[in-house]
Amino acid sequence: MNIKGNAIIAQGGGPTAVINQSLAGAVIEMKKHKEITAIYGALHGVRGIIEENFLDLTNASQQNLEEVALTPCAALLSTRDKPDQEYCGKIFQVFKKYDIRYFFYIGGNDSSDTVRLVNEYAENENYEFKAFHIPKTIDNDLVINDHTPGFGSAARFVAQAFMGINLETKALDGIYIGIVMGRHAGFLTAAAALGKRNEEDGPHLVYLPERAFNIDNFLKDIEAIYKKLGRCVIAVSEGIIDEEGTPIAAKLKASISRDSHGNIELAGGELGDMLSKAVKENLNISRVRADTFGYLQRSFPGSISDTDQKEARLAGMAAVQFAMMEEYQSGSVILDRIGEYEIQYTLTQLEDIAAKTKHMPDEFINQEGNNITDAFIKYANPLIGTDFKKTVSLDAPMVKKK
Amino acid sequence: MNIKGNAIIAQGGGPTAVINQSLAGAVIEMKKHKEITAIYGALHGVRGIIEENFLDLTNASQQNLEEVALTPCAALLSTRDKPDQEYCGKIFQVFKKYDIRYFFYIGGNDSSDTVRLVNEYAENENYEFKAFHIPKTIDNDLVINDHTPGFGSAARFVAQAFMGINLETKALDGIYIGIVMGRHAGFLTAAAALGKRNEEDGPHLVYLPERAFNIDNFLKDIEAIYKKLGRCVIAVSEGIIDEEGTPIAAKLKASISRDSHGNIELAGGELGDMLSKAVKENLNISRVRADTFGYLQRSFPGSISDTDQKEARLAGMAAVQFAMMEEYQSGSVILDRIGEYEIQYTLTQLEDIAAKTKHMPDEFINQEGNNITDAFIKYANPLIGTDFKKTVSLDAPMVKKK
Repeated sequence: MNIKGNAIIAQGGGPTAVINQSLAGAVIEMKKHKEITAIYGALHGVRGIIEENFLDLTNASQQNLEEVALTPCAALLSTRDKPDQEYCGKIFQVFKKYDIRYFFYIGGNDSSDTVRLVNEYAENENYEFKAFHIPKTIDNDLVINDHTPGFGSAARFVAQAFMGINLETKALDGIYIGIVMGRHAGFLTAAAALGKRNEEDGPHLVYLPERAFNIDNFLKDIEAIYKKLGRCVIAVSEGIIDEEGTPIAAKLKASISRDSHGNIELAGGELGDMLSKAVKENLNISRVRADTFGYLQRSFPGSISDTDQKEARLAGMAAVQFAMMEEYQSGSVILDRIGEYEIQYTLTQLEDIAAKTKHMPDEFINQEGNNITDAFIKYANPLIGTDFKKTVSLDAPMVKKK
Repeated sequence: MNIKGNAIIAQGGGPTAVINQSLAGAVIEMKKHKEITAIYGALHGVRGIIEENFLDLTNASQQNLEEVALTPCAALLSTRDKPDQEYCGKIFQVFKKYDIRYFFYIGGNDSSDTVRLVNEYAENENYEFKAFHIPKTIDNDLVINDHTPGFGSAARFVAQAFMGINLETKALDGIYIGIVMGRHAGFLTAAAALGKRNEEDGPHLVYLPERAFNIDNFLKDIEAIYKKLGRCVIAVSEGIIDEEGTPIAAKLKASISRDSHGNIELAGGELGDMLSKAVKENLNISRVRADTFGYLQRSFPGSISDTDQKEARLAGMAAVQFAMMEEYQSGSVILDRIGEYEIQYTLTQLEDIAAKTKHMPDEFINQEGNNITDAFIKYANPLIGTDFKKTVSLDAPMVKKK
């Protein structure tokens, strides 16, 4: 027989379009198991635990959970807090006070490290306890996983944004630079290419944080495309770095500010504005536009991948199912790809995932480091939804000039 | 009997998500009328006319037209050219050479002025000819019209973007500033509020080009909301102006550049970055983020209003139907609202529409000039789609603290 007691679930880090699918999946699954007495939802992640701010989800209705599942962003609210030993001690006191025996944390690699630390603390205290990490990140940068819930929907948004922009530059010419999220991993920026129908479609160039960025090569690349097509669409990761590994965006900031995880702030329009200015001045092209996609790409409710929704749901359910098995005390749920496209949910040790970052493999990046390969397209295509439609052009002959 | 001859259709100005619905509607309708011999589609608007670059749409298949209709951005490509008398003379020579007797131009107020000029030219030359303007603009700034095709889908995008951002700031706190398109009219920025469920939801403040912008009041407004809610979501039009009527964005540019219509360039991240910096420095709040929505809001294929699609289609069909009536020689199609929500397509003189700009009426803006009113919500709600869903929060009680 498994431990009997209360369960707590929380959400950490940035939002995705499907993080509440994992929440709904986990809660619905928990309700099936009599080992779990009450189901608490901590508000604002680990901060809600130490502050004892819990929603009682034990009797949450199936209908409400289904509606919340379709809503992007953490329904339990989120946090950037990263617990140290003292913080974990406080979490622990609360867990004991509330007889919490099951802990589920939906988040990225920082959140998985939080689960690892809290679990370590419980082990040292001989507290009977199970702790599971449910993967989530639009960056797709968790190791071992084929991909992570949240990425497919963000990738769909970025692909669709570039589909529109490709048509816009075709209609009105010019240069377009879109700055896409991704601090260390280029997956989301690479997704800009998923709506391309042929070589003439944009994005024509893709710059990733996995390759050193050189402004002279960037300008030469654009010039070559512009000469051929009279336009050029470019996807640039916000995290592009120079030869020394310093983010280009950080170098543009008057003062560098960091978030509570020590990450340098990359937000704002400076990177796009600088690149756009460089193109205007050096290539003498007047119609140059840069947009920084920003928050829209991770929380847009209007266009969510059905595949991503399903997988996030199943990842949440899988975490609870593993917790109900006597052989597992803790772990992180892994999405494994089998065959052409099927996903299997397995479990790995928390320390295998925690605070590690996956990057785009070399086979997904072309030799020049300015575009993605067909291998990436093949990899990412199934993630953006079964109903993903490409754009269609007029199919009509030209009239012979008189 | 009506004039017999060839017809030409073209698209001008910036893209919308439904401009090809009007194209498909007009072409499908033209195919029904034996007065029209051949149907030409000029590539790149009026420029395609003088360069004689036409697609032959006479035998375009229904299936291709239906698929193109679902694709955003001008399928016939677009132009920013604004013809003068000489340009109109050239257009005219081409029309005579190709026996073109029907001219349909889908576009905004600049495009309607083009139709007016070309039509005037034909009248002076006693050339038997009919010219019609089909309305299109995400800015919703054509006079007489209740609203314009293209606005509903862009409004849907902006509303959904702010729905996600509202949840994101709820989950992680902070200040968010979203810069929305709209050079002279605030309709699209106002649409940011269409996804609100209650007073606590963002956007909490909305700044429009119809009211002079004052940075001190802006900071005071934010401070008041932030004190109450611990967060603040703000929608700002790219076209906000100072007391003298100068765009704030233009004042931030090192050098002012203008497009071929003489419009000052407002693009780029500077406005958002400046406002974000002002909030950080004056209110001492660290988590401040600004995004400039840019091109995404007018060409995103992932979330289009079905109402907008239907109306754009019917506006295109209506233009051809008016052209087939002997009593009409030229005009601009008007969308009239009847009763609770029904649209009637009427015709007005080209000079009533041409080069005129509609602004947000006073009843849509609150007294403080920092938000919209319920009257705007009532007006705009039917335009963003019959399937527009708001977000849903968890419906569960708080756990009593131990």
